[in-house]
Amino acid sequence: MSNVPITVAHGDGIGPEIMEATLHILKEAGARIDIETIAIGEKVYLSGNAAGIAPESWESLRRTKVFLKAPITTPQGGGYSSLNVAVRKTLGLYANVRPCVSYHPFVSTKHPVMDVVIVRENEEDTYAGIEYRQTDQVEECLKLISRPGSEKIVRYAFEYAKKFGRKKVTCFIKDNIMKRTDGLFHRVFEQIAPEYPGIEADHWIVDIGSAKLADTPENFDVIVMPNLYGDVLSDVAAQIAGSVGLAGSSNIGENVAMFEAIHGSAPRRAGQNLANPSGLFLGSILMLVHINQPDIAERAHNAWLRTIEDGVHTYDMFKDGISKEKVGTREFAQAVVDRIGQKPETLKPVTYTANVVDADPKPIYSMPTPQKKELVGVDVFLDWWKGSFYGVANDLGPLVEAVNGDGLKLQTIANRGVKVYPGGFSDTFTVDHWRCRFVADLGEGTAVTHGQINSLLQRLATAGLDVIKTENLYNFDGVKSYSA
Amino acid sequence: MSNVPITVAHGDGIGPEIMEATLHILKEAGARIDIETIAIGEKVYLSGNAAGIAPESWESLRRTKVFLKAPITTPQGGGYSSLNVAVRKTLGLYANVRPCVSYHPFVSTKHPVMDVVIVRENEEDTYAGIEYRQTDQVEECLKLISRPGSEKIVRYAFEYAKKFGRKKVTCFIKDNIMKRTDGLFHRVFEQIAPEYPGIEADHWIVDIGSAKLADTPENFDVIVMPNLYGDVLSDVAAQIAGSVGLAGSSNIGENVAMFEAIHGSAPRRAGQNLANPSGLFLGSILMLVHINQPDIAERAHNAWLRTIEDGVHTYDMFKDGISKEKVGTREFAQAVVDRIGQKPETLKPVTYTANVVDADPKPIYSMPTPQKKELVGVDVFLDWWKGSFYGVANDLGPLVEAVNGDGLKLQTIANRGVKVYPGGFSDTFTVDHWRCRFVADLGEGTAVTHGQINSLLQRLATAGLDVIKTENLYNFDGVKSYSA
Repeated sequence: MSNVPITVAHGDGIGPEIMEATLHILKEAGARIDIETIAIGEKVYLSGNAAGIAPESWESLRRTKVFLKAPITTPQGGGYSSLNVAVRKTLGLYANVRPCVSYHPFVSTKHPVMDVVIVRENEEDTYAGIEYRQTDQVEECLKLISRPGSEKIVRYAFEYAKKFGRKKVTCFIKDNIMKRTDGLFHRVFEQIAPEYPGIEADHWIVDIGSAKLADTPENFDVIVMPNLYGDVLSDVAAQIAGSVGLAGSSNIGENVAMFEAIHGSAPRRAGQNLANPSGLFLGSILMLVHINQPDIAERAHNAWLRTIEDGVHTYDMFKDGISKEKVGTREFAQAVVDRIGQKPETLKPVTYTANVVDADPKPIYSMPTPQKKELVGVDVFLDWWKGSFYGVANDLGPLVEAVNGDGLKLQTIANRGVKVYPGGFSDTFTVDHWRCRFVADLGEGTAVTHGQINSLLQRLATAGLDVIKTENLYNFDGVKSYSA
Repeated sequence: MSNVPITVAHGDGIGPEIMEATLHILKEAGARIDIETIAIGEKVYLSGNAAGIAPESWESLRRTKVFLKAPITTPQGGGYSSLNVAVRKTLGLYANVRPCVSYHPFVSTKHPVMDVVIVRENEEDTYAGIEYRQTDQVEECLKLISRPGSEKIVRYAFEYAKKFGRKKVTCFIKDNIMKRTDGLFHRVFEQIAPEYPGIEADHWIVDIGSAKLADTPENFDVIVMPNLYGDVLSDVAAQIAGSVGLAGSSNIGENVAMFEAIHGSAPRRAGQNLANPSGLFLGSILMLVHINQPDIAERAHNAWLRTIEDGVHTYDMFKDGISKEKVGTREFAQAVVDRIGQKPETLKPVTYTANVVDADPKPIYSMPTPQKKELVGVDVFLDWWKGSFYGVANDLGPLVEAVNGDGLKLQTIANRGVKVYPGGFSDTFTVDHWRCRFVADLGEGTAVTHGQINSLLQRLATAGLDVIKTENLYNFDGVKSYSA
């Protein structure tokens, strides 16, 4: 079998030491890889590259499609953007995968039985960071959830479960409140789950689901989530497993995949042969499975488990009475190498299987079935304020109604999602951000035109009302597709 | 001292039993209250009231301004809206407060030392539920964070800490990603904190903060958060304290406040004298402090702690070896009544102090200082799709540029927050939701007019491009106030 080219970055701080240790184990375990080294991080930032990665390095990533990355240091001060965000966005790394495992009794944790994999959507949600200030008082961020984006991550979660022999995939959403956005994610989950009859599928509302995860993680297996929930809960899961220093993760795209430790570059520990290479090493195990070298992954991972269980621990894991030997980075790696061919006796050994070439692979997202989209109105948002937080909606109402015409009429005014006109309550607190809903004169659901909306905007401007944004209202296949 | 009128609802399922038990303890502890009873919940829903509360009941709430509420059952089937949401929105209950306490060793928990209060913003964030579908593939939800809304909740958290003798208030936000929305919440926190020099103030990014909370809750005291994070983490905190069945909460508005248990109506346990009244009882303790009867609150709460510590437990708390006596709802309440005047010996007794009338009370929100707002462009969102998820941005670019004119020009096109034109990458995955940013011909930051934007929208419509929404771009006091 020929070697697989991979791109490696040694990073900053403890990065070079833990990468050296990781590559030492991989080599001794027989990994069939050819390494292309690129420079990323602090030096690249300081040489004037705002994203911390040189243009030629992208070529290596696009060529090898596999990136093993050590932690980096982003320099203090403004103007430096996140390398991880740049890599993720540019290469479309849509899935963040983080296995969170307890190694009880060898690593201390309050949750001795825990083996959870968080599969987090990585590109959408409020984390796209699309934000606006349009009034004195209010800031807005857009939460976007797409069907193909949801299909990609849910599909990935089930394929991961299949490949890694997992029994259950759980979906966390808040679709009792966010019926459209989280509702879409949940519907996609329900559509894809039946294609995997051997894998149990269930879902939790994210609040109580998170509570269960934090209290009894042993009841979970693979959990798939939109970006924000996944960000929070992948940190929670790693921390309560006792394994922030021990966890690796992958960032998977359609073409390129990146593997790393979840911890940072810990500059204060650098250069002292102290750091624990386990996080990056476990990231590299995910990489070996990804490049279809399950035999090597299994051999290296089991040797690592045996090392943990033999009490050969770096300073961060070391605990009197449990640990047997406190070792440095290099000695830890050598201890793993010395155990290649052995398996753990107390901890459960791992097994990995080769990628099966699927004769009829499922598409990772579907072509959308276009629906009949009909424009039925517009929400026009106004910046308006009368110097009071109470009872002014009844002043605004008639001003807005005065621009009714040309087939459009004001239906309601809402403030922070609460209807305040007509018929609002005087004890509803209002801010300077007003949503005015216009629908057809003939009744909600009747089609209107872009031209009617543009004329309305013109009339609002003429009336001196300060339009700050619009949201068109649509029916899809005759069904109202906007919130009340 | 004259009695304080309060409104009481006995609710559904176990509601009537636990309310009876709670009121029995309050009465015997000497609470100076006059009760107005209202009907809410299942029967009211089924009688045709979609919000589960009759119009005349609002009058009682507005009159007494204090609402002690038992859990209710929302009937199955569509068309019934949440009573809690209706009460919260209508009466502006902006603060949700949930103390989460461990009662180790009397109630089992992995976190023996825990006494955390979650103060959650209750009206804003994505939970306003403002959602739109405007393309085949994408759903949108608006996240709104306001300055007065943030001021109210942060102010409340510090005032709560002062009143209840708390030492620290921690803020959880994700302002490294959501720089504007979460950034505003964080800035407000930093502005208000120094007004409370006796109270420590710190903040965490919500991901790692949540991990720390789930792992070592003993390091936290009061935590204040925007709505979504607060929803998730108040459930996490209650669960890991072992106290979901034991936790009460308050929902505080400028005028009205509501007190309740955090659990539901548990219809299957109803009518059997089984249910634990502690959650509602502890909610009523918050109420007694709120209506300035700290002496009664202290007496009743300490009697309850002594009951817990004496091992007199309802079925849900009962554990062999720890509990001494398994009792029903009524017997539990009587056990608390029998201990009025006693204090716990192992658990820490509570002390409450009277409300001090502040000679110079701080306003709960400030009048905004109007800034100079200047319109400098517009993001126009298009529904456009060419049947491919890759590489089509270069086809869209020229179509949009063709409508340049009248002083406005296309600057960039982005898709899910990633710039794709000009100069995008062919490996960026795109959906059918395109953000086209238009700025002044003379350069970004130069003022434009509403008229120019309206003409642009007209030209886009004429060109057959499907505008689905707009977001105006503003500078405030000369500072760019929208994301890249």
